[in-house]
Amino acid sequence: MQYFAIDALKGYVIRYLTRWEVSPEDAAIAADVLINADMRGVDSHGVIRLGNYYGSRLAKGQIDPRAEISLVHETASSLVVDANNGLGHPAGVKTMRLCIEKARANGIAFATTRNSNHYGIAGYYAMMALPEEMIGISFTNSGPLVAPTHGSRAMLGTNPIAVAVPAGHNRPYVLDMATSIVPIGRVAVYEKNGKPIPPGWGIDSEGQVTEDPAQVIHGGALMPLGGPELMRGYKGYGLALLVDIFSGVLAGSGFGEQVYGAESGNSARVGHFFAAVRIDAFREPAAFRQDMDLLMDSLKDSPKAAGEERIFIHGEKEFERAARAEIEGVPLSDVTVNILAETGQNDGVPFDIKPLKRN
Amino acid sequence: MQYFAIDALKGYVIRYLTRWEVSPEDAAIAADVLINADMRGVDSHGVIRLGNYYGSRLAKGQIDPRAEISLVHETASSLVVDANNGLGHPAGVKTMRLCIEKARANGIAFATTRNSNHYGIAGYYAMMALPEEMIGISFTNSGPLVAPTHGSRAMLGTNPIAVAVPAGHNRPYVLDMATSIVPIGRVAVYEKNGKPIPPGWGIDSEGQVTEDPAQVIHGGALMPLGGPELMRGYKGYGLALLVDIFSGVLAGSGFGEQVYGAESGNSARVGHFFAAVRIDAFREPAAFRQDMDLLMDSLKDSPKAAGEERIFIHGEKEFERAARAEIEGVPLSDVTVNILAETGQNDGVPFDIKPLKRN
Repeated sequence: MQYFAIDALKGYVIRYLTRWEVSPEDAAIAADVLINADMRGVDSHGVIRLGNYYGSRLAKGQIDPRAEISLVHETASSLVVDANNGLGHPAGVKTMRLCIEKARANGIAFATTRNSNHYGIAGYYAMMALPEEMIGISFTNSGPLVAPTHGSRAMLGTNPIAVAVPAGHNRPYVLDMATSIVPIGRVAVYEKNGKPIPPGWGIDSEGQVTEDPAQVIHGGALMPLGGPELMRGYKGYGLALLVDIFSGVLAGSGFGEQVYGAESGNSARVGHFFAAVRIDAFREPAAFRQDMDLLMDSLKDSPKAAGEERIFIHGEKEFERAARAEIEGVPLSDVTVNILAETGQNDGVPFDIKPLKRN
Repeated sequence: MQYFAIDALKGYVIRYLTRWEVSPEDAAIAADVLINADMRGVDSHGVIRLGNYYGSRLAKGQIDPRAEISLVHETASSLVVDANNGLGHPAGVKTMRLCIEKARANGIAFATTRNSNHYGIAGYYAMMALPEEMIGISFTNSGPLVAPTHGSRAMLGTNPIAVAVPAGHNRPYVLDMATSIVPIGRVAVYEKNGKPIPPGWGIDSEGQVTEDPAQVIHGGALMPLGGPELMRGYKGYGLALLVDIFSGVLAGSGFGEQVYGAESGNSARVGHFFAAVRIDAFREPAAFRQDMDLLMDSLKDSPKAAGEERIFIHGEKEFERAARAEIEGVPLSDVTVNILAETGQNDGVPFDIKPLKRN
């Protein structure tokens, strides 16, 4: 691993994106979301994607670097935003800001974003509500990778659900979960290493559970959370569909195979969903925080399974990693650094920053 | 199976509950929710529980048959209701009615119910939104049966998530899922039949996965959706916790081990969560319904796994069963009929209605 100063890395990401005509303001938002992912240990959604997803789509004109969001529809409690095929991160952050503002006045607000692109980690947007004494929620759809139960073709994205809830002395609860068992990147790691995947993660092109990662990636599909019917994988399928209903259908965006689909033309038509909920619309926030701590502490202090030392609350590991990264710098694998160096070279923005340390 | 006329069965349930001093209005609500569960094929949550859960708790004074709900707190978008330890079904239906009314004015509304009891199938309350051109949501917490990931003790309920969304020519999407893999009743059936359970459904008192249903039931726990860590069971654990945060903590009700816990005294302190969302706060409802159909049809028409004939949308099987029950009568197993006969006899309300047919 190599550890980079947060500001230096952010500066590089901004330089890289502005080279593609992204405005400095939008580039700064994208840099913050991407680096936050690396700091929290979700490296699959971090700067590793800078060149091969964002840069590549910007270069091909598949993302409009100059797009401004526009307001399609608004009520006292709801917002519909059009990203106009701009980068997903600024579209997401701006929509969630508007959603929080509306919740401040109304108690609860929902917002959707249509015609967007990959917005990184869903948890980032949910967590924006935390300093406001609010619960934050975000979903997004994504390109089809998951087969419905009894199906053999990838029809739904890994469609994540993120919910952030403030607590007291404990760190906030931050659930940020794909509705598939694992992301496709995890299966790709097994393929690269020539190892079989655990049965249940994915299916082949006939819809049969396979341990061969290549069969999942080439013509097969991921299984939804739960896996096969015996283990109630139709619940994970139901959650993936729920996310597509809120992020795609309710937003008037792409859904199902339309996301990154041929009929959507050059644009991905990704849709997002956001919600902000004031705690004090229900209870005195101090009492709420106290009960959150009681619940979290009871779980953490409950008896451990043989061989286990610790029970975690969702988000806890990620907050600890982010705190370490604040001190040690943003951890990037050698693979990620090599990819940054290569795309930086090709795209005329050399990756010229030096790590604080290596190990 | 024995098939009973809907109205006759409803009449019996009302007679049984009013014998325990429940008002005829509340008894009629409870009868409708319970019989709806049997009609939809969720017999574990139907009239089988009439005597051994509701009657038994009413008899012991653990549920107040005369309780009226009271309004604790209200904003333009939110409601907090106290069930005052009454039956869960009328408390749930009345809270959801208020929630829908508020959403009619405000676009979106959330409501919580504290100090309630078992409210039956969560999907019933979510589906109340459907005729209003709204999305309906309901969660409830329940007595601890599920262990957190890395834990060995049951700390959370099977805490269901229900979401109902209108469609066009298709029946509505109705997700109604426990956040455990299976309910405890399913494990009990394996114990009764002397069969091993599939590995992953539950753990023993040491927190180890076991195939012995008795070890799960006596001192062990259910596993959350996903099962062991390798299959990402911490996501199911995160969803169970999410439901407890919304139904328990946000409601100011019991949560975690407090639900049916010793410190809650005579009452169960179950909490519920409800939401209603107007479709037209986001899009023209006709366009929304059309896109729902496109998405649902694409899933149903997608290629089937080898050996499978049909891909289902959530709620589809249950709507088909309910339509059959409208014609054939409410299907009850002989076991259920025997339980009704026995508790009816003991409680002075003989189960004196005859089935339309048997098979």
